[in-house]
Amino acid sequence: MGRRYETVSLLTDYGLVDEFVGVVKAVICDIAPHARTIDLSHNIRPFDVRAGSLALARCVSYLPSGVILGVVDPGVGGSRKAIAIEVADGEGVFVGPDNGLLAPAVAMAGGSQRAVVLTNEEYHLQSHGATFAGRDIFAPVVGHLCNGVDLAEFGELIDAEALLPGMVPLSRIEPEGLVGEVLWVDHFGNCQLNIGPDEIDGWGTQVQVTFGDTQRVASRKHTFADVSTGAVGLVVDSCGMLALVLDQRSAAAELGLGPGDQVTLVQLSDGSSDSSAGVTSPVTMRAR
Amino acid sequence: MGRRYETVSLLTDYGLVDEFVGVVKAVICDIAPHARTIDLSHNIRPFDVRAGSLALARCVSYLPSGVILGVVDPGVGGSRKAIAIEVADGEGVFVGPDNGLLAPAVAMAGGSQRAVVLTNEEYHLQSHGATFAGRDIFAPVVGHLCNGVDLAEFGELIDAEALLPGMVPLSRIEPEGLVGEVLWVDHFGNCQLNIGPDEIDGWGTQVQVTFGDTQRVASRKHTFADVSTGAVGLVVDSCGMLALVLDQRSAAAELGLGPGDQVTLVQLSDGSSDSSAGVTSPVTMRAR
Amino acid sequence: MGRRYETVSLLTDYGLVDEFVGVVKAVICDIAPHARTIDLSHNIRPFDVRAGSLALARCVSYLPSGVILGVVDPGVGGSRKAIAIEVADGEGVFVGPDNGLLAPAVAMAGGSQRAVVLTNEEYHLQSHGATFAGRDIFAPVVGHLCNGVDLAEFGELIDAEALLPGMVPLSRIEPEGLVGEVLWVDHFGNCQLNIGPDEIDGWGTQVQVTFGDTQRVASRKHTFADVSTGAVGLVVDSCGMLALVLDQRSAAAELGLGPGDQVTLVQLSDGSSDSSAGVTSPVTMRAR
Repeated sequence: MGRRYETVSLLTDYGLVDEFVGVVKAVICDIAPHARTIDLSHNIRPFDVRAGSLALARCVSYLPSGVILGVVDPGVGGSRKAIAIEVADGEGVFVGPDNGLLAPAVAMAGGSQRAVVLTNEEYHLQSHGATFAGRDIFAPVVGHLCNGVDLAEFGELIDAEALLPGMVPLSRIEPEGLVGEVLWVDHFGNCQLNIGPDEIDGWGTQVQVTFGDTQRVASRKHTFADVSTGAVGLVVDSCGMLALVLDQRSAAAELGLGPGDQVTLVQLSDGSSDSSAGVTSPVTMRAR
Repeated sequence: MGRRYETVSLLTDYGLVDEFVGVVKAVICDIAPHARTIDLSHNIRPFDVRAGSLALARCVSYLPSGVILGVVDPGVGGSRKAIAIEVADGEGVFVGPDNGLLAPAVAMAGGSQRAVVLTNEEYHLQSHGATFAGRDIFAPVVGHLCNGVDLAEFGELIDAEALLPGMVPLSRIEPEGLVGEVLWVDHFGNCQLNIGPDEIDGWGTQVQVTFGDTQRVASRKHTFADVSTGAVGLVVDSCGMLALVLDQRSAAAELGLGPGDQVTLVQLSDGSSDSSAGVTSPVTMRAR
Repeated sequence: MGRRYETVSLLTDYGLVDEFVGVVKAVICDIAPHARTIDLSHNIRPFDVRAGSLALARCVSYLPSGVILGVVDPGVGGSRKAIAIEVADGEGVFVGPDNGLLAPAVAMAGGSQRAVVLTNEEYHLQSHGATFAGRDIFAPVVGHLCNGVDLAEFGELIDAEALLPGMVPLSRIEPEGLVGEVLWVDHFGNCQLNIGPDEIDGWGTQVQVTFGDTQRVASRKHTFADVSTGAVGLVVDSCGMLALVLDQRSAAAELGLGPGDQVTLVQLSDGSSDSSAGVTSPVTMRAR
């Protein structure tokens, strides 16, 4: 066997308590001992396809060429397809369920060039039950891809148009302001919005932020430590999106924000941009 | 030094907050830089030898040849033996405490062919205290095994009969039905029973399930998505055992079940198998 | 490129839910595919520089030669320096923020021989925002170090005297006894003190322990299993420090102790050392 791919990047909702991730790696290692694995996350919230798809999309431009295996798969064993998608002239192959999980990352990698439904059981493990496709279908396919088996060997080629698209919410301009939502709350409680800095270009250093019954003034800052104690900061995060942050505290916990919550930004007049952040704004903490 | 083994699979109750796992890997890597490690789990509940032994047994048929290090070791530093057990003509070596942790997996791998008590301190690290055998005894032994040191070098050979057996609970037929227990609750809340599908062969699509004061009707299904909302499914899981499941929700949380809880299955008459699952059965949620 | 270092040991407060750790490894792997990574911990409490520095110091003597990347970095993107420090004639290089995180480990590795501020942007990633130095500054520097780029290439050399020192609390002798504190509570609830066994040499087998309003008698023991049920043990832990422990239960939870809590040890007379541990001492559990 050749050695087509050296690296397998993994993202799942399997958690790190059970042996699921280890068994997937064991199967890959058994078939393709030369391949190394990189864990992106295994703590995607169970069944949260959207959260998994956003995490994969945030990673994709930093991954080495190789195979990317994503498994957040509430429909495992059912009618959803198991697929593999080649991108970037074969520099990368995405493997996982056809439920939208892979779609945003595939798009960011330039889009699908060839896609296949993993129906060829010669490349699957014989197994008990139908509940662990990660071990029985995806892992062996990943191993054989690393060994140089061509995509077309794994099943029927399928048109990329037939694959389920991903859903990424867009911000919109409404009479009350620029309406977006929290895309992601990270480990530190930073709240990434689906709004880029270009969308508030020229708004000045203070921005009004409304969510639920709460209204705050957030200060545009370069990094966390620039945000004063008690104030809310609005920074450009590591993905290039705007994020609501506090300094060394969780903005999500203190503002009561979670993924999917609606957030409205409003430009303040020059006058109010002089007042210090948060001081003059009423604060009503929304019950979660 | 030769290179006898390429892969070390690890299972511990060390958790992923402290540096314990990393230090064990560092010691192995320092002695046998060619060896790669596969993490099966490090979040076995502290001191839960039974849970660790079941997890190892679930993994073992999927592991590449190599060394398997298991450490759930409440008796560390005391009178329990530290052991290594060769299986499958040397294809694999299990290393860990002699407290039953390794026994079911060793049995599944064909049984012990040679076993040794790790008394030869030449292969241990000089260390502070007696509380971290994973670092000071097991890790260096694993490294030297990978380098080709023969099992007999690590201490006195011991008869497999002298090793502590593992305890796996068996189901039994009682007047009230087929009585088993919950072996394992996984990350998704699926409740694996110690009952195989052959034990309810011919029972039809509906099975009565009793635990605590609760009685439910569970529907035999192929996979999670086949289970209707509000119904309880009974699927063959990825280990080939029966499991109580819900679709995209935790059966353990909603039914109040945990490892070791007794569950009784009763065959329903053909008449009641026509009624839809759960609808006509009284539901009293047991306090946990 | 040469292959200067084979191993990168990682310690961060990034957590294991988001993809941060995976992206850091992806960047390192992309630049230095030959390098392997060892995860020491990624669950240092967010922003807890002291806890991270103690964990690194506990590991350092067990790490293979190579690069050690530590990131607990509340000042990311601000005025704190990003640094790399060579130790042990180039056997190791520490990389991370200049906030005291690396200092105790560097000292244990023999001290800084050359240090550099990572100002040369040729070795950084072009990136969005200033919030993810692990990905944009530290990871590429680590990769290039592994490939043999000399330390001096990464920025201006800096005198080790100009680096921020670490703070490790020392025990002290007071009229009321030997006063120390809890340095670390591990996964099992063991409470490591900043007191070594030499400091209580000749005190006998029973030691009075006072913290908050609680007074207990602790028994000197070799390992956990030697501690009687209900008694408190005082063992020499795997770092060579004294630790308050219970057998198979969490001393931290049951005694109400956490990192930084003051603990006073007092030598008991020979008479009281005959009484069994804990039986005659009043127990008032401090509210946390």
